[in-house]
Amino acid sequence: MKNIYFTPGPTELYPEVGHYIQEAVRENVCSINHRSKEFIEIYKHTHHSLKKLLNIPDNYAIFFLNSATECMDRIIQNCVENTSFHFINGAFAERFCKTSTELHKKIEKIEVEYGRGFNFKDIIYFNYPELFCLTQNETSTGVAIDPEDIYGLRKQFPEALIAVDIVTSAPYVNIDFNKIDCAFFSVQKGFGLPAGLGVLMVNFKCIEKAIYLKSKNISIGSYHNFLSLYENAVKYQTTETPNVLGIYLLGKVCENMLNRGIENIRTETEEKSKLLYDFFDNHKTLKPFVHNLTDRSKTIINIDTGKDQTMIKKKLADHGINVGSGYGTLKESQIRIANFPMHKIEDVKKIIRVLSH
Amino acid sequence: MKNIYFTPGPTELYPEVGHYIQEAVRENVCSINHRSKEFIEIYKHTHHSLKKLLNIPDNYAIFFLNSATECMDRIIQNCVENTSFHFINGAFAERFCKTSTELHKKIEKIEVEYGRGFNFKDIIYFNYPELFCLTQNETSTGVAIDPEDIYGLRKQFPEALIAVDIVTSAPYVNIDFNKIDCAFFSVQKGFGLPAGLGVLMVNFKCIEKAIYLKSKNISIGSYHNFLSLYENAVKYQTTETPNVLGIYLLGKVCENMLNRGIENIRTETEEKSKLLYDFFDNHKTLKPFVHNLTDRSKTIINIDTGKDQTMIKKKLADHGINVGSGYGTLKESQIRIANFPMHKIEDVKKIIRVLSH
Repeated sequence: MKNIYFTPGPTELYPEVGHYIQEAVRENVCSINHRSKEFIEIYKHTHHSLKKLLNIPDNYAIFFLNSATECMDRIIQNCVENTSFHFINGAFAERFCKTSTELHKKIEKIEVEYGRGFNFKDIIYFNYPELFCLTQNETSTGVAIDPEDIYGLRKQFPEALIAVDIVTSAPYVNIDFNKIDCAFFSVQKGFGLPAGLGVLMVNFKCIEKAIYLKSKNISIGSYHNFLSLYENAVKYQTTETPNVLGIYLLGKVCENMLNRGIENIRTETEEKSKLLYDFFDNHKTLKPFVHNLTDRSKTIINIDTGKDQTMIKKKLADHGINVGSGYGTLKESQIRIANFPMHKIEDVKKIIRVLSH
Repeated sequence: MKNIYFTPGPTELYPEVGHYIQEAVRENVCSINHRSKEFIEIYKHTHHSLKKLLNIPDNYAIFFLNSATECMDRIIQNCVENTSFHFINGAFAERFCKTSTELHKKIEKIEVEYGRGFNFKDIIYFNYPELFCLTQNETSTGVAIDPEDIYGLRKQFPEALIAVDIVTSAPYVNIDFNKIDCAFFSVQKGFGLPAGLGVLMVNFKCIEKAIYLKSKNISIGSYHNFLSLYENAVKYQTTETPNVLGIYLLGKVCENMLNRGIENIRTETEEKSKLLYDFFDNHKTLKPFVHNLTDRSKTIINIDTGKDQTMIKKKLADHGINVGSGYGTLKESQIRIANFPMHKIEDVKKIIRVLSH
């Protein structure tokens, strides 16, 4: 029996990845010099495919880092002089906020109970925010922020920078990059790739902020500061020897997704999530954790299981289906089901079938 | 014709890597959760195999980072209150030094001309050094520092910390870890793996230094500070989702090397380097860049080619052999030949044969 991973990430590999890796080994992708023409071609292909897939405008640079956690670190270092403002709706938003504190910046925050969204209209800001940090899709709780609410911040505070964590919503989420300043994801989620690559997309406003901080003699970090990253990125290169295989594979998967059509992927994601939410909304004991329909993530679906969690996970595992546990304090009372582009509708139906008995 | 990479890294993959990757994909190594028992088993295997291979003592922790450049960054952040002391003999030693400046630390340094070693006895220290940074094997110049000279620093300054870059000498170099405090390498060199994993080995003295800096309210960084790394490493885990595939493959290659015997690998490395240096010492026009025999690296062999560089590289490439160019200002007047554990003696002899005509 084949195992299928519906875990929030690392997750099921995108189906062609095994084949792409073999191709990479055959073509010496792991042996070429990272300053060579061959590498630049690989970088260009990934850069352009990703820009096309996510509709990233020309005034954006793409940086290849090593994890989403590193992206948070570099954003704080390069975009914050004094204070970052955090919307905290789960463990990953907390991680972003903690990063700022650890880097000796001040923080301001608005916090909601796990499983709930924000009432953006009711938030009172005491200062003009410098950088907004938003976890658009909270992997720990399965709560998603409507991009329109993020664009509202841009209208209200046009001078503030806006950083958006789309770790588990990319490539599904259709973000208007013109209304934010940077976003990031890691490849072991919606792109179904081996972990070890974080992708950070930043506009010129972020680069300018890093230049400003440097001019004020504020440390913006060493090899992975935005200026060093940008200087290399415009040459389709990286500061240090990067995860070349990861960059190669990301390009291949983006190309594959472009052929499938991003709109098809988005429609399928919504169909699969509707099947799951409808099923659990009508289930006697297993209920979606997020009650408010508009707060529900389409890609991370948290289900309250109470004390049945182990039994439910085992029941699914007996049919070759691996789902995630809850996160943190919810570890033993929830399951999390990821709904990424590589997850097939027939396998989603299988989850429902197994849990119907 | 099969291409063989004698480049300083990325380089030829260790021969079994293609097979190990297929095994990893088959066994869902890229899909498992990084907090799962399965991951902990992979981590343990790599940790113990590496400790055995390099003879790393019990008072050392191993951190899995993303590149050697990141290792430099984290060492400076976590081990320097005021000043780092740098032995500069090439571009990578300069990178280490620049990292310290970028992180707003003070530096002291001793510099030698490219291609030369240090006269350790003649160095005058004006202050008691806080952290020594040494590039044991300079990948840009092919100069190696005798570990005995490094141990001499420990005798002279027992309170100073000693950080050693063994990026292109591991696993060949037989370092006595009891006489230094931390060392690091990246896996795309002597281990013949895909790039994207840096390995940092630190003893308790380094951890204690990080605790001390934190107590003085000096930033030691965010997610990859030594305390967070250590707290996870003792549980055979990582702070964030790491390059799981890279950690898995490193364990496999270490195991393979243990079966071959590290002493055999070291003897073979010396045999191959002797063949190469003997040949070039007797060549009419192509001469080793490093004149002093005791300064010569066994694993990175720089050869002055003058204006013939392109022709020499092409001649070798026509026989399927890829060697590196010189580094930086030496880019067009040198070739660099790596001599790592996956490089076969018959292929070294082929280089000599091709260049004999």
